[in-house]
Amino acid sequence: MTEPNPPLPPESAPPPESLPARTLKLTIAYDGTDFLGWQFQPRDRTVQGVLQNALHRMTGEPVLTRASGRTDAGVHALGQVVSLVTTNQLPCPVFHRALNAHLPFDIRVLEVCEAAPNFHAIDDAVRKRYRYVLHDGPVPDVFLRRYCWNTSRRLDVPAMQAAANVLLGKHDFAAFQSSGSKRATTVRTVFCLSVTRPENQPDLIHVEVEADGFLYTMVRTIVGVLWQVGCGRGDAGTVRRVLESRDRRQAGPAAPPQGLFLLRVEYGDSPKL
Amino acid sequence: MTEPNPPLPPESAPPPESLPARTLKLTIAYDGTDFLGWQFQPRDRTVQGVLQNALHRMTGEPVLTRASGRTDAGVHALGQVVSLVTTNQLPCPVFHRALNAHLPFDIRVLEVCEAAPNFHAIDDAVRKRYRYVLHDGPVPDVFLRRYCWNTSRRLDVPAMQAAANVLLGKHDFAAFQSSGSKRATTVRTVFCLSVTRPENQPDLIHVEVEADGFLYTMVRTIVGVLWQVGCGRGDAGTVRRVLESRDRRQAGPAAPPQGLFLLRVEYGDSPKL
Repeated sequence: MTEPNPPLPPESAPPPESLPARTLKLTIAYDGTDFLGWQFQPRDRTVQGVLQNALHRMTGEPVLTRASGRTDAGVHALGQVVSLVTTNQLPCPVFHRALNAHLPFDIRVLEVCEAAPNFHAIDDAVRKRYRYVLHDGPVPDVFLRRYCWNTSRRLDVPAMQAAANVLLGKHDFAAFQSSGSKRATTVRTVFCLSVTRPENQPDLIHVEVEADGFLYTMVRTIVGVLWQVGCGRGDAGTVRRVLESRDRRQAGPAAPPQGLFLLRVEYGDSPKL
Repeated sequence: MTEPNPPLPPESAPPPESLPARTLKLTIAYDGTDFLGWQFQPRDRTVQGVLQNALHRMTGEPVLTRASGRTDAGVHALGQVVSLVTTNQLPCPVFHRALNAHLPFDIRVLEVCEAAPNFHAIDDAVRKRYRYVLHDGPVPDVFLRRYCWNTSRRLDVPAMQAAANVLLGKHDFAAFQSSGSKRATTVRTVFCLSVTRPENQPDLIHVEVEADGFLYTMVRTIVGVLWQVGCGRGDAGTVRRVLESRDRRQAGPAAPPQGLFLLRVEYGDSPKL
């Protein structure tokens, strides 16, 4: 499945002077199973590498892409947003079809639109929404094994929702950030955090979380903590103590990557033309 | 993904004389993506090969399995039924858990129950139901690419349903059977054949068909014909002419395997204990 990646252009590489540059905003979906995450790696198959390779072949120029955030190996996206600058002059609908024709079937471009010249997929994002899918039926589902976390124990969803409510609002989420990441601040605002069984799917649990930003592995660490509550180990008080500790060691292991989906990214009005 | 397969025991091999033999009925699900179909092949990864390998390791004896029917490479099952004879004496729930522990995650045993000594998964089946999944949205779904047929054209579902109705009832389906198969009769009775868009999934089409038996590639050939009608090439009259021709060449190409799911197999009352 590995494809050769074109060399990554330097961050500051300007497009050729002769043609006017434009900024495009792409919305893409990918099945993270066979990718080593978003970020370009010279030797590994990554979403950024495969996307830039396709853009290079299609436009004839090296194109640097920026995503709203990096996703880890195995994490999926239903609505990742990517910004890029190109001198290619194809109208958006044609660019859209042409790029999909150059991509493998585990990445699809859902939308291409013109953006303001200074639009930046990371810096301009104002909200992101993730879904984490758990399966707690008696027998794992053969068709969902790449797209959920199978847990052998039946989980207590009302207890998980009660504990989740502790995390709503503006907090210092340092306890939910993997060590090694360097962010200016670990304060984030969680607007929504719901734990529900989707209709007609009694063995699935969706944890959906929307915030103004996420720390590294924050969603999976939250799900790891809520899973413990769902198993009967801890309650809302435990989650409050973890949050207030600001100590990652208190939160326990993160949930595995294959249950995580980046659903959508919201931007303010300014970046759109 | 390939696992070594144990040698296939001859059809007539009796279980060791010293222990009483019992017949079990298994209901299994599998993701057909990484299997070269149901039937045992000495060198290829097949559902029967992997299942018999697991049974051999678990029981210590070679076990011949029979399925309600062979599925082709890439075809999935949500409720395939398998019969087997074994001298293993584990109670059904324990046998169930132990067998799943020996199987890879793309096969799961959903149910194990005792069957009458002469129960036979093929001979005793009285009805089978299949679903075929089509996707006709503007952009293929990255998560469904292994589990549906992506067609680039938007399909006319009411026209497909009208044409499908021609096939209801008892007919000679010789025109819908792949060449090379040898059945005593090509007459089958189709009890139900529905073409619908599932609720809240406007880009999917489910073709569900239930019959007293199916000829080789009959479902995929029916879907291929209905797809042509959905594209505007033909109507109910065309399907009637294909049916009445009893000539496979009139039906056109079969739909690809990855959209096909064996949903369930029904048995009369007699085989159950």
